[in-house]
Amino acid sequence: MIVAMQEHATEEQIQEIISRLTDIGFNVHRTTGTVQTILAGVGTPGIFDVKDFELLEGVAEAHRISSPYKLAGRGFRPEGTVVKFANGVTVGGGEVVVMGGPCSVESRDQIFRSAALVKAAGGQFLRGGAFKPRSSPYSFQGMGLEGLKLLREVGDATGLLIISEVMEISQIELMLPYVDVFQVGARNMQNFNLLRELGQVRKAIVLKRGMSATIEELLLSAEYILAGGNYDLMLCERGIRTFETATRNTMDISAIPVIHKLSHLPILGDPSHGAGRRDIVPALAKAAVAAGADGLLIEMHPNPDKAISDGAQSLFPEQFEKLLEEIRLLAPAIGRKIAAPVAEQVSI
Amino acid sequence: MIVAMQEHATEEQIQEIISRLTDIGFNVHRTTGTVQTILAGVGTPGIFDVKDFELLEGVAEAHRISSPYKLAGRGFRPEGTVVKFANGVTVGGGEVVVMGGPCSVESRDQIFRSAALVKAAGGQFLRGGAFKPRSSPYSFQGMGLEGLKLLREVGDATGLLIISEVMEISQIELMLPYVDVFQVGARNMQNFNLLRELGQVRKAIVLKRGMSATIEELLLSAEYILAGGNYDLMLCERGIRTFETATRNTMDISAIPVIHKLSHLPILGDPSHGAGRRDIVPALAKAAVAAGADGLLIEMHPNPDKAISDGAQSLFPEQFEKLLEEIRLLAPAIGRKIAAPVAEQVSI
Amino acid sequence: MIVAMQEHATEEQIQEIISRLTDIGFNVHRTTGTVQTILAGVGTPGIFDVKDFELLEGVAEAHRISSPYKLAGRGFRPEGTVVKFANGVTVGGGEVVVMGGPCSVESRDQIFRSAALVKAAGGQFLRGGAFKPRSSPYSFQGMGLEGLKLLREVGDATGLLIISEVMEISQIELMLPYVDVFQVGARNMQNFNLLRELGQVRKAIVLKRGMSATIEELLLSAEYILAGGNYDLMLCERGIRTFETATRNTMDISAIPVIHKLSHLPILGDPSHGAGRRDIVPALAKAAVAAGADGLLIEMHPNPDKAISDGAQSLFPEQFEKLLEEIRLLAPAIGRKIAAPVAEQVSI
Amino acid sequence: MIVAMQEHATEEQIQEIISRLTDIGFNVHRTTGTVQTILAGVGTPGIFDVKDFELLEGVAEAHRISSPYKLAGRGFRPEGTVVKFANGVTVGGGEVVVMGGPCSVESRDQIFRSAALVKAAGGQFLRGGAFKPRSSPYSFQGMGLEGLKLLREVGDATGLLIISEVMEISQIELMLPYVDVFQVGARNMQNFNLLRELGQVRKAIVLKRGMSATIEELLLSAEYILAGGNYDLMLCERGIRTFETATRNTMDISAIPVIHKLSHLPILGDPSHGAGRRDIVPALAKAAVAAGADGLLIEMHPNPDKAISDGAQSLFPEQFEKLLEEIRLLAPAIGRKIAAPVAEQVSI
Repeated sequence: MIVAMQEHATEEQIQEIISRLTDIGFNVHRTTGTVQTILAGVGTPGIFDVKDFELLEGVAEAHRISSPYKLAGRGFRPEGTVVKFANGVTVGGGEVVVMGGPCSVESRDQIFRSAALVKAAGGQFLRGGAFKPRSSPYSFQGMGLEGLKLLREVGDATGLLIISEVMEISQIELMLPYVDVFQVGARNMQNFNLLRELGQVRKAIVLKRGMSATIEELLLSAEYILAGGNYDLMLCERGIRTFETATRNTMDISAIPVIHKLSHLPILGDPSHGAGRRDIVPALAKAAVAAGADGLLIEMHPNPDKAISDGAQSLFPEQFEKLLEEIRLLAPAIGRKIAAPVAEQVSI
Repeated sequence: MIVAMQEHATEEQIQEIISRLTDIGFNVHRTTGTVQTILAGVGTPGIFDVKDFELLEGVAEAHRISSPYKLAGRGFRPEGTVVKFANGVTVGGGEVVVMGGPCSVESRDQIFRSAALVKAAGGQFLRGGAFKPRSSPYSFQGMGLEGLKLLREVGDATGLLIISEVMEISQIELMLPYVDVFQVGARNMQNFNLLRELGQVRKAIVLKRGMSATIEELLLSAEYILAGGNYDLMLCERGIRTFETATRNTMDISAIPVIHKLSHLPILGDPSHGAGRRDIVPALAKAAVAAGADGLLIEMHPNPDKAISDGAQSLFPEQFEKLLEEIRLLAPAIGRKIAAPVAEQVSI
Repeated sequence: MIVAMQEHATEEQIQEIISRLTDIGFNVHRTTGTVQTILAGVGTPGIFDVKDFELLEGVAEAHRISSPYKLAGRGFRPEGTVVKFANGVTVGGGEVVVMGGPCSVESRDQIFRSAALVKAAGGQFLRGGAFKPRSSPYSFQGMGLEGLKLLREVGDATGLLIISEVMEISQIELMLPYVDVFQVGARNMQNFNLLRELGQVRKAIVLKRGMSATIEELLLSAEYILAGGNYDLMLCERGIRTFETATRNTMDISAIPVIHKLSHLPILGDPSHGAGRRDIVPALAKAAVAAGADGLLIEMHPNPDKAISDGAQSLFPEQFEKLLEEIRLLAPAIGRKIAAPVAEQVSI
Repeated sequence: MIVAMQEHATEEQIQEIISRLTDIGFNVHRTTGTVQTILAGVGTPGIFDVKDFELLEGVAEAHRISSPYKLAGRGFRPEGTVVKFANGVTVGGGEVVVMGGPCSVESRDQIFRSAALVKAAGGQFLRGGAFKPRSSPYSFQGMGLEGLKLLREVGDATGLLIISEVMEISQIELMLPYVDVFQVGARNMQNFNLLRELGQVRKAIVLKRGMSATIEELLLSAEYILAGGNYDLMLCERGIRTFETATRNTMDISAIPVIHKLSHLPILGDPSHGAGRRDIVPALAKAAVAAGADGLLIEMHPNPDKAISDGAQSLFPEQFEKLLEEIRLLAPAIGRKIAAPVAEQVSI
């Protein structure tokens, strides 16, 4: 914590700041220049808001100089986190994984066909939403428990790992038997009660960046889950809201290398939400991998034109297959490889 | 719904679009120009995503031409909604109300002193949070039920109406006996399950705009509550996230007149969150009223420097009092007046 | 300048930073904590980029602790700048001035009618563009010199002060005999060569904020003009680009009180560009005045439906007149008054 | 052009709109539904602003249905533009070119060493600024004509093509003998007079996207240059301004595939300005190539720590060399190849 005093700050004002810094647990070092006094607070203080200092009399500027998150920081695990699944799939360890599937589970036929396509193309995870609160109250709202059961069934049949979105605390218990990964959607990135509960769960989590969240805020949200003891955590960049309207969101590809620098957690890219339109999903997917993403979350549908939700951003099966081929070529060019397809369990 | 075909679209492509528009319930009118065909879908269709059409073969552009919300639209209640409370306070009917109080309920003493100050200054509502999930897991998280009881007690003692934030469905039942208004915070603006439940409640609601939500999205969220039959709904502009860093958010004052045009619902301004810094709260509060806001939500604290949360944006008591004085002068200049102070119940 | 070293920074790394700080002219004070070393550079250094320090080995964070502008800072003229014109009009001294008129000068008749309306309504300045590069190469590009002559003629006839936009250095000389105020448009806010030349001019300047410029960047641009010795400078908030599409830009009303705090320069509001749509211009204009704006820049046209440019955001004459009436009422409520109408010169 | 009338629009209002559409050159087709009338204007009208229609009485919505640019549109040259240089280098034809060099020309030694490094690493273009207006008036402003002469000399010596930024019309003539490519910087993207002049020049142009410009606005600016007859035009994505502060700008990688779809012009990526920090430039450069960029513009400096400007975002020579190696591997994985190094001219 650094507080730079204004040029004409009085000694009384300076003493007031020193007293407050001391109160919250800092050791204070004072630098008195000819024009300006600077106070450096060192140590491990309690809770404080740096903005509280900026408004005090005599203060020119106040800066926090340590990152507000700790467990999520790269320094906590310099070697990086590798999330390991029972079937041998790993995320964060040099291989690029693919999580594919439809926005929502719509029917038994639809999800089984989706799974077969994801598996054939070489993906490791099947995604599909069971709860689908939509921005219009007049839209389809998901299959619920029935959808979860279908996901588990097809996961067992194919060996694909199942990832599905959890919307609120009450769904955790319900979903636990059916999913391998809980996905926290962008709108829930700062639902701190939900995050805290997920810190207690012994299943992997994908935490998506909120569409107006900074990278620092994403890491603070990750901190909630890690603080509960759950380190099987993957982050996901899925586009931020900007003034550009050609795409639904602006995928912030920079977030991938920035997060690799700031944190030990694996980072995935979701080009489907990043783009919001199918035609540029492949380009963004390749860009994410080239920038170092540890995996991709891609919407695919056996028949996107008939999809109940997010059809416009879902790939056709042949596009999905072609994209995975391209990534298979691309990954080695940046010193990585695409993860192996999951082993056969039973034929479907 | 309008679909403009590309210049060289084939008849087959045109027929495909006509067929799809018909499928979802539109009557289709075709305009064949020398260079371009335009299809107009009229009627009341089922669910569809306009983006699905934009990616079809032969399509140049697709536009939805009716607003996606209905109950929230001005046309539904051209005369405007007035939310009425038992003690005679109204919101939306020409008077400007003031909702003041601390970010969080911290203690009996703090909330009683806050209430006395709000009442003395002429406010009608006391705000205060009982549940305070914060962006850092290491921060204060609220007094919970005890805080709610204190709010009710001080409300009964002073005649002030009580507004407090609901964070999740499970809190609705808990809060019901204690509050007069449920506040839905910016982070929950698209928590559709919560909104749907609040549509069933017979208490008034303040719905805050999400920090990356468009005005249209705010009205779609309002639709969820209205669709449940709860019309005692007030909207609230509290700042959006932009590139500017001098303020925590950028208060979108334009949203106030825009919402008055698009919707019949009252719209409040929250300059405290809009600014994130105390020193410019009064200027923004006056700007909101001048732009036509039906009320203000203002953070005030008996001792902001000791506030557990949001101290930097809370007004000192004397600032709060002075601001209300100024608004008392300002409101008539734009043809409104500040609402009357609440009547005495018992002295405190 | 503060440099916070990483926890495990080596002494060699620390010495390297000290050496660099010294090189650029800082006196360095060192604070060695148990976990972290902090270096404070005090004094008046030469040119440097704080980002250069952030990337050096061993550095955790670097912060500039003095504002990068000096002449534009409030501290330079705590009493505030008042721009004075020959006819007695002042900007920045407690009165609210109004600059009205069409986007472009289109014809003798149009600009004379506009001037008569502005004057009758009580405005002090007539605005009108002579050079109008537009975002489409197929649009009207302005009347040029002929337009300037018309502006001067109508200014002399009515006593209104003339403000018109300068697009490039070569136009300064040309415009000098005809205008009272040079307006620098948002797109030129960082055209530093133009700003430098305008610092040499002995005419007043209105500098508009760029649509993606921070307040700090606006003040840095002001510094260019002030550094040339021209202190007759007014700033103008005219909306920034955000994700909201209901308005062309988002008018950042907060910028008004923030600039009043950071700088001594007067600040105007331009609700016409801020909104981009006529219907909410009055609400934004009143909000700007309530927030403390020293004046308004408003597009008005005798016949907006026939305007060659920006018709959609130009007020009708009767709207303009009504708005000025409202501001006449509003200003006293915040302790200001609207400036007096200009005195008669000759009748028109 | 589509105008959707409000539900209760009168016949008189409808006739007024029809009359206006006809006035500006549209043939109007009318669709009368049971609740709403829709007017479709087809044909090639004169100048109009779609916003003018939205505010007319009885209008619900108005949409332009043709793109506002023509020459820049993909339809104008479906096969794509290939910019060809005298020495055989092409941009837009499947090969990926690299334009490297320092932000500013600082000295003979610095620019010759830069050129040698760019050439050795396999680049085709040397970049370097001669005019450097900076955001602070107290910073270095460039070497001017002397810098241009050094660029030409080193270009002749090495065979590298020279690209340098033009800031204003008066510099065009001056620069013409010395550069192979004029670069228009982000701040000048909407300096329409400059663009119009560059349309007359017989040298290639790189037009950078403004930091708050939409893709559509970039294409409209391109239209100015194309309308003058200069088709040797390349676009460049260099980051847009968003709320994220971890990077100086947010590089909008989506813009690359979107522009390839909308336009026939080659599109380059500038990861140096996109990131503003050296450490993530390589990741963004690879992402841009993976997304289909036709080339890269990269800041490199023989000694970034001593660079007068933009040192923090300039690569060290060894980083630059390594990055080009990586792109040499990456390009074939997406079906492209890096362009051949320029042929030897004379040794330096």
